[in-house]
Amino acid sequence: MEWQDQSADESERIISMKMWDGRFAKPSAKLLEEFNNSLPFDKELIEEDIDGSIAWAKALARIGIYNQTESRKVIKELTAIKNDWQKGHAKLLGSDEDIHMAVERLLVERVGQAGAKLHTGRSRNDQVATDTRLYCMRKINHIKNLVKEVQSALILRAESDKNIIVPGYTHLQQAQPISLAHYWMSCFFCLEREKSRLDHAYEICDIMPLGSGAIAGAGFAIDRKLLAADLGFSRISDNSIDAVASRDFALELLSSLSSLGIHLSRYAEDLIIWSSREFGYIELDDAWSTGSSMMPQKKNPDSLELMRGKAGRFLGNYTRLATTVKGIGLAYYKDLQEDKEPLFDSIKNMDLVLRVFASVLATLTVNSERMAAQLDPLLLATDVADYLTTAGLPFRQAHKVVGSIVGYCVKNKRNLMELSLKELLVFSPLFKKDIQVVFNWQAALRHRDVDGGTSLRSVNAQVKKAKMLLK
Amino acid sequence: MEWQDQSADESERIISMKMWDGRFAKPSAKLLEEFNNSLPFDKELIEEDIDGSIAWAKALARIGIYNQTESRKVIKELTAIKNDWQKGHAKLLGSDEDIHMAVERLLVERVGQAGAKLHTGRSRNDQVATDTRLYCMRKINHIKNLVKEVQSALILRAESDKNIIVPGYTHLQQAQPISLAHYWMSCFFCLEREKSRLDHAYEICDIMPLGSGAIAGAGFAIDRKLLAADLGFSRISDNSIDAVASRDFALELLSSLSSLGIHLSRYAEDLIIWSSREFGYIELDDAWSTGSSMMPQKKNPDSLELMRGKAGRFLGNYTRLATTVKGIGLAYYKDLQEDKEPLFDSIKNMDLVLRVFASVLATLTVNSERMAAQLDPLLLATDVADYLTTAGLPFRQAHKVVGSIVGYCVKNKRNLMELSLKELLVFSPLFKKDIQVVFNWQAALRHRDVDGGTSLRSVNAQVKKAKMLLK
Amino acid sequence: MEWQDQSADESERIISMKMWDGRFAKPSAKLLEEFNNSLPFDKELIEEDIDGSIAWAKALARIGIYNQTESRKVIKELTAIKNDWQKGHAKLLGSDEDIHMAVERLLVERVGQAGAKLHTGRSRNDQVATDTRLYCMRKINHIKNLVKEVQSALILRAESDKNIIVPGYTHLQQAQPISLAHYWMSCFFCLEREKSRLDHAYEICDIMPLGSGAIAGAGFAIDRKLLAADLGFSRISDNSIDAVASRDFALELLSSLSSLGIHLSRYAEDLIIWSSREFGYIELDDAWSTGSSMMPQKKNPDSLELMRGKAGRFLGNYTRLATTVKGIGLAYYKDLQEDKEPLFDSIKNMDLVLRVFASVLATLTVNSERMAAQLDPLLLATDVADYLTTAGLPFRQAHKVVGSIVGYCVKNKRNLMELSLKELLVFSPLFKKDIQVVFNWQAALRHRDVDGGTSLRSVNAQVKKAKMLLK
Amino acid sequence: MEWQDQSADESERIISMKMWDGRFAKPSAKLLEEFNNSLPFDKELIEEDIDGSIAWAKALARIGIYNQTESRKVIKELTAIKNDWQKGHAKLLGSDEDIHMAVERLLVERVGQAGAKLHTGRSRNDQVATDTRLYCMRKINHIKNLVKEVQSALILRAESDKNIIVPGYTHLQQAQPISLAHYWMSCFFCLEREKSRLDHAYEICDIMPLGSGAIAGAGFAIDRKLLAADLGFSRISDNSIDAVASRDFALELLSSLSSLGIHLSRYAEDLIIWSSREFGYIELDDAWSTGSSMMPQKKNPDSLELMRGKAGRFLGNYTRLATTVKGIGLAYYKDLQEDKEPLFDSIKNMDLVLRVFASVLATLTVNSERMAAQLDPLLLATDVADYLTTAGLPFRQAHKVVGSIVGYCVKNKRNLMELSLKELLVFSPLFKKDIQVVFNWQAALRHRDVDGGTSLRSVNAQVKKAKMLLK
Repeated sequence: MEWQDQSADESERIISMKMWDGRFAKPSAKLLEEFNNSLPFDKELIEEDIDGSIAWAKALARIGIYNQTESRKVIKELTAIKNDWQKGHAKLLGSDEDIHMAVERLLVERVGQAGAKLHTGRSRNDQVATDTRLYCMRKINHIKNLVKEVQSALILRAESDKNIIVPGYTHLQQAQPISLAHYWMSCFFCLEREKSRLDHAYEICDIMPLGSGAIAGAGFAIDRKLLAADLGFSRISDNSIDAVASRDFALELLSSLSSLGIHLSRYAEDLIIWSSREFGYIELDDAWSTGSSMMPQKKNPDSLELMRGKAGRFLGNYTRLATTVKGIGLAYYKDLQEDKEPLFDSIKNMDLVLRVFASVLATLTVNSERMAAQLDPLLLATDVADYLTTAGLPFRQAHKVVGSIVGYCVKNKRNLMELSLKELLVFSPLFKKDIQVVFNWQAALRHRDVDGGTSLRSVNAQVKKAKMLLK
Repeated sequence: MEWQDQSADESERIISMKMWDGRFAKPSAKLLEEFNNSLPFDKELIEEDIDGSIAWAKALARIGIYNQTESRKVIKELTAIKNDWQKGHAKLLGSDEDIHMAVERLLVERVGQAGAKLHTGRSRNDQVATDTRLYCMRKINHIKNLVKEVQSALILRAESDKNIIVPGYTHLQQAQPISLAHYWMSCFFCLEREKSRLDHAYEICDIMPLGSGAIAGAGFAIDRKLLAADLGFSRISDNSIDAVASRDFALELLSSLSSLGIHLSRYAEDLIIWSSREFGYIELDDAWSTGSSMMPQKKNPDSLELMRGKAGRFLGNYTRLATTVKGIGLAYYKDLQEDKEPLFDSIKNMDLVLRVFASVLATLTVNSERMAAQLDPLLLATDVADYLTTAGLPFRQAHKVVGSIVGYCVKNKRNLMELSLKELLVFSPLFKKDIQVVFNWQAALRHRDVDGGTSLRSVNAQVKKAKMLLK
Repeated sequence: MEWQDQSADESERIISMKMWDGRFAKPSAKLLEEFNNSLPFDKELIEEDIDGSIAWAKALARIGIYNQTESRKVIKELTAIKNDWQKGHAKLLGSDEDIHMAVERLLVERVGQAGAKLHTGRSRNDQVATDTRLYCMRKINHIKNLVKEVQSALILRAESDKNIIVPGYTHLQQAQPISLAHYWMSCFFCLEREKSRLDHAYEICDIMPLGSGAIAGAGFAIDRKLLAADLGFSRISDNSIDAVASRDFALELLSSLSSLGIHLSRYAEDLIIWSSREFGYIELDDAWSTGSSMMPQKKNPDSLELMRGKAGRFLGNYTRLATTVKGIGLAYYKDLQEDKEPLFDSIKNMDLVLRVFASVLATLTVNSERMAAQLDPLLLATDVADYLTTAGLPFRQAHKVVGSIVGYCVKNKRNLMELSLKELLVFSPLFKKDIQVVFNWQAALRHRDVDGGTSLRSVNAQVKKAKMLLK
Repeated sequence: MEWQDQSADESERIISMKMWDGRFAKPSAKLLEEFNNSLPFDKELIEEDIDGSIAWAKALARIGIYNQTESRKVIKELTAIKNDWQKGHAKLLGSDEDIHMAVERLLVERVGQAGAKLHTGRSRNDQVATDTRLYCMRKINHIKNLVKEVQSALILRAESDKNIIVPGYTHLQQAQPISLAHYWMSCFFCLEREKSRLDHAYEICDIMPLGSGAIAGAGFAIDRKLLAADLGFSRISDNSIDAVASRDFALELLSSLSSLGIHLSRYAEDLIIWSSREFGYIELDDAWSTGSSMMPQKKNPDSLELMRGKAGRFLGNYTRLATTVKGIGLAYYKDLQEDKEPLFDSIKNMDLVLRVFASVLATLTVNSERMAAQLDPLLLATDVADYLTTAGLPFRQAHKVVGSIVGYCVKNKRNLMELSLKELLVFSPLFKKDIQVVFNWQAALRHRDVDGGTSLRSVNAQVKKAKMLLK
């Protein structure tokens, strides 16, 4: 018996959308199809599904399942479907159970029987794992580039705000004076670690499951290493059960995005506070603020608020998939279909957050006069304690002495920077005239000149290193 | 100066979509609009927004902001917009910032200046809180009805499976024999508490914020109690700040759905295990099962797996909003816009889960012979211990004696039910001929005749109570 | 054969700590015992375990398992063990597997054989569920009382701060002036709903599982309703499987505490911001602040920061148990032993948080002059728009007109309250001399006189209602 | 003025536990001290705190804050305190605010003034971050070693179970036959990625914050690189604000442990199911099982259930800290003190879980006969489809043909392996005599001979690679 190619309009006979109904006496319930159907979201994977299918077709050709003509045709038409999709021409049908069946249907419509061979040795289990990994790898690169754009904006800010002094806060109380550039660079280095997380997530994704079949490995002598090279994977999975069961790569990416979102939310919080009338340190550009439906005077930092609020989304998406995966046995369960929506949602929203943040940073106005005006002389208390320590007083005593001076200032509404030597000598005999040198904002910055400190030298070194890291 | 109605094509002049741009020198960035725009999801609230607007128009008429003609016209056209929407005719625009502005724009297009008066004394802050609460109240009723449908299916199952005995499991080890109907009723009563949670969530939603303005209360003498009655709210908020700031009602609903999802997942787990070839207790109807793309013999309980897997989604959605709300100050921040997507997602998916579960329950086949065949005689060990206890042996000793008998059976591959009196007497002198009465599955069920136990009497009482509760 | 009481030193023979080892050939591994052992945390339940045991002994006496002498003795000694525990005399042993076995051992040591009868018809499955529910009920009452103490502190604050005007914030931008008392009352009414949640959690706890045995119901004719009455439960469980399987009551309480923690964190955030030097609205009492190990001038609102930070703990504890329960079958699995630690931890920490918050509120100092000084004249923009609206201008236009006025003020650094009528008439012909009445902070508050608004009348009504609710 | 050493009993005067009270007029409230006090849990960090202090003393000596005598003495006594602690002699006091103050107090008691100098240039902000990172690094190494022990147990299992065939499951339905060794190896390779996560967490921890002071950098010319080398850190933090603010390293470790816990829970689930009477594939050793308080026959896989249940704990601890960190500004807030308890709890419990799992694996009994008996002939359906595919039938048609054969077998209760050629030919003319070769379990395994497949060759290669990876 021989199989001839059949016209495209016979394709439905060749491949029914429910490709598994031979064993079943009854069709699926409509509601179950709605419940099961993943097309509304997994169509996001279409390009990866086509890429995976092209590579698989090549692999099948290598072992003779496809002859040259078939293989060329299949590859050509899969490529054409991808082009159609990118141009918005490819039509997915409500009856397509998922994106994998949709692509196969489109192919069979174009190439007939050769399309019906494509699934040889493959299962949706290894197919979907492959598609999703490819997708994650592409998106991780994209997100990393956006993180770099934020970092570039931070470097620009640091360079232009280098000479601005701002109170450094702990507990939202003024702690020590810092360079504003130093603040921006803290975000830069925080993001370096976020990129490292994304790199690790990439590494975990970069393992090809294709060829693992449903659970036990493909029953055809596929050269998986060649296949991996075709698809841009560095490694192949070592064990087929693990390959189809594992969603750790998705969890890893969701956890990276959760971390990124949480750390961005901290900077959003600061900038929202700095945007308040009471702080008045920065003003968002009109293009990145919004107003109120009721109060004509309002100018709200909505962009930063959403950036902060979405941290819940990123964490929630991780929690969501982690809980789904918890306690389900090996290898594949349909529960795992729940992996895609949180992934897509976190990726899409992080894309927005990062692009918005880069723009907000680039366009905000710093009110350096306001920052200077807000510097509380008591910010120099540590410097006075350090002065006494250098003069030989153990730090604990110095801390106490300065604590008393501070109490004196607060009680008597005196400005620490304007205390006379005579007044100071009441608290400690170690004070000398040169204490005046301490009462100076620039000196306070120069004073913290360790690596990573807020001195100009250190901040310049940070910027230099940052530029190098971005290259 | 007087204001005349203007033709609909002047509406854009009357109300620009960015109704707040008077204070701004520059338009919003495109990307910010994309970031901020909630229309793609908050259009879900359109009916509630229109209902709220109609009630608000009436309230404004009562205090003379609208004259009778205006008020009649505004109400008529809002009703018409709602009808259009339901028929799929109302057009939302990409430039509509959110559903509230969309509805107002549609109204102004129809009634001109009268539409521009609608927002008098109202803010989007109290408006969106009102819409969302109304929406939740409607959906809670819907979800509760679906829970009742599942409960009805359980009662039907209990009635038809009343005489089937199945091993009761703890630790997935056979523990004591139970009536299958007793098992189904456990789910019924579990769901009673879920409904109680939904009721409480309803109660928390059922507080009207409208009239709270942006934060400090409307500046017009609105009769809020009348307004609440119009909208079907039982109570009005006591404090305007709390009213616009609070999202606890959304968290409460998400937490209820999380609880419901988690408890359903436990039954899904059991039924998946019972569907395995090795247990073989139940078989899902073909219409509620799916097959495999690779393995022609597979029949998978996908419906139950998704039901189990979606528990992660429900919990994740709660976590997501809870994390967003955590630590943001009063009253309104844009972070709170993140409340809607998890709400809509959980509601939509719970609707599916419940409808699927009711159908799965109604259509599954119970294999009672298999259940009978799997009953391990050792299931009666507690009954033997109870026998000895009744004969006067303290339970702790009885437990030990029976432990030894069990050990004897396991070691010698003997069936507990077939031990002779002579063999039993080796372990305790308290055994008598009537021990035979204990070695009987029906007797074992009859034996647990406390309220809530697995005896037929108790199960019948449960079913009776259940029917009453559903009325 | 008869059983005589035996001396206490034979108790070990009567009841070995591993009461189930008859069936086992080998003892447990040490490491497994460490892994399984719940005594280090479940000893928290000792009083409830004793109360439950006393009631159970009475129930056994009613059906003749205990004669009067035995029953009296058992009850007396259980009571004595409880007293010993409260005085710190009762000794738990490392070899006690859990608190239930510890109590039983202590009893057997005192009463011999009668103690060995106590577990008749009972299983640890229904026992632990009963203990935990009793414990939760007691703790819910305690937490509710602490919430009321916070509410009392809020009422006191509201009464003393009634005439203080403070900017009301949305997006941390000044929005509209409000009464400080109005702000405190927002927290009061928020907490009303938290108490309602706790009430509902109580209702869910208040169902007695005892008599459900391991899964199928006790094999003795226990009168469960009488037993429930003895223990203070309002209802008995309807189904024994559900009774031993369910941990929804624990999830419900954890979710209530999560909600409470999250909403408290919002107020903590505000008060932390208000404590900053830049806002300067409040100062925490020295007794409720801490200092820095390095910076002598620091005074940090640590109490509020911990209160905010612990919101993560409360949410995490809910997530933790919810994830554990997800997807485990019926009835009991050891996984459920993980329910106790998050419960105890959330309860203990919420107790601290509430007590600290009540004290912080009672002792903080409000800087009303600072608040007055910070009021931005633009806060009155809505009032001006309302003025124009009352004069006949549709609100949307009024909003725009005022937007332009605001723009004019910002650009020209003019104080809105000091604009001349002439200047105002440039923007709208509707302004008249009486616009001056609007430019007044008290008037702005009086203006929001709807129920729940910030007017003095409304705030007084809120306080009155609040006092009534606390009774 | 000179400072002399003072006797140890003057130490209290030198360093009061509240080292910051100079600025305060009132002592802390008792309740606040209880709320703030971290000693009950942060004493876990004592060794790292001492190590960090020793290195800091050396750094201070290098810049002359300490002379040689002082430095030698301080280092000697810190070392002695550590030894005392390890022997259980060091006494922490309730009045110690935290472990840092406790260590400093103990030092001052021994060395007087020299101890009071130790905190020069240091803040608790950089100190606690340093301690916690060192602690995490040590614990990550420990956990990694335990993961390796589990992996070793898996290799041993794989080697001894190499020739056992077991049904491979998807959806808990028999899918394809696999080698039991292949199953064990899936866990091995899953754990490889968990180790990679731990490695990355280590990398993130391995950045030294010490020298960052409270926020702006130490005010003394500390050589931070030398200091890092002393403490075993590979890198120093680049920015002092980031250094004291960041808790991403803790989140990273919690997220790694969450991932590990979740993936272990999947294997626990499988093994619990396999332990059921109905599956009967494995039996846990008596030493790793427990019994029931009521049912003498029970033998429960509690060890695996706890391992599964604790996944909720690991995820919950991550969620907990992530939520705490979300939305708090820079640099340090007391909220961050909440980082330690979840860290310590996850580490301690993961230690237990891994040790238990390794033992359970090593001691469980495999029932290979039961596995063989349970193999459903329909497991070979894919093999038959592959046969037809090789014979030239496109896979989609082959899948359908076999689906019909399966339907025929189910309907007529025929064993697929016993169908005659004649019967098969009814379904497809492509069947030949050699189809018999397919009907063989060993052949089915041999058939999946791709890399990572279940063939003996592939499994041997996996074991070989695994051994290499463990070296």
